[in-house]
Amino acid sequence: MAHIDLGVDETQVPGISGPMRYRPETAAPLNALAEALLRTPHPTLTQGERELIAAYVSGLNDCNFCCSSHSAFAAAWLPEGMELVRQVRTDLAAAPISAKLRALLNIAGAVQVSGRKVSTELIDAAKAEGATDLEIHDSVLIAAAFCMYNRYVDGLGTFAPDDPAAYEQAAKRIVEVGYVGF
Amino acid sequence: MAHIDLGVDETQVPGISGPMRYRPETAAPLNALAEALLRTPHPTLTQGERELIAAYVSGLNDCNFCCSSHSAFAAAWLPEGMELVRQVRTDLAAAPISAKLRALLNIAGAVQVSGRKVSTELIDAAKAEGATDLEIHDSVLIAAAFCMYNRYVDGLGTFAPDDPAAYEQAAKRIVEVGYVGF
Repeated sequence: MAHIDLGVDETQVPGISGPMRYRPETAAPLNALAEALLRTPHPTLTQGERELIAAYVSGLNDCNFCCSSHSAFAAAWLPEGMELVRQVRTDLAAAPISAKLRALLNIAGAVQVSGRKVSTELIDAAKAEGATDLEIHDSVLIAAAFCMYNRYVDGLGTFAPDDPAAYEQAAKRIVEVGYVGF
Repeated sequence: MAHIDLGVDETQVPGISGPMRYRPETAAPLNALAEALLRTPHPTLTQGERELIAAYVSGLNDCNFCCSSHSAFAAAWLPEGMELVRQVRTDLAAAPISAKLRALLNIAGAVQVSGRKVSTELIDAAKAEGATDLEIHDSVLIAAAFCMYNRYVDGLGTFAPDDPAAYEQAAKRIVEVGYVGF
């Protein structure tokens, strides 16, 4: 269980939800950022594609709660469902996605290591596949933001449920209500 | 200069300021988070101590713009000024700070590597020096947040001025106006 007393039953309020209830002053901008990046309609990137970037980076950061959550959220939005999320997470190079989305995920993977790993070559490769400046901006910021959320969740030692049903349940609420009303 | 067209003269609008002007929808929660974590009065951690955590983590992430900025902001708040910031950044074990603040910086250093690196031993050491749950929570989240801001700034390849005066100028505005009105 968590390193500090969050004042909640973590089996009922797992992962990031406990620290967010504990500190509403920081929860408000954290949720507003997730809503703007992942759920607010975007000119070209679907909610599923953006959640896929979040799930991919959370997997690279080995954050069980965030990876399970955002994999379920991506699966809820994507027509191809959880199978595509699994393919992206296990073999990005072979996953059946557009060359543009793969290039954006490659940028996200570099961001996960360090901002300095985002090379001109990675950016040019994404632009060559038609990625817009806004898509590159948002991919970098989604990846960077999950390097925060993942560290917040694991740095406080929060509880992550094993049961996939817990994440599927949360996915329904994210699709219907979103991050701000969560 | 930046990997994407931010629509600004980066020599005048350097570092994170360019991406924030480019995308005001995400700038709003990013600034609100910085204000809540670093500048809003805190029951026990001063603005200088919290900016010191931000500068320390930004240094570990090798983010020139953020490290120079938050070192200047910490120096502006701390009675001991830039000399203490330098000591903390170059030799944390020997820096003339309280044992509690050192323990919180050790937690922040672990978060910089991975949330999973925050051990029970690091938490117990901080508690033994009198750190409260809120201080531990905020130290983890400040460190996690700078793993985001640093990656955002460098992942987009933004420009960082060399002249210390640019950061001292920014520090005056942060102390007076804050992050939200920046």
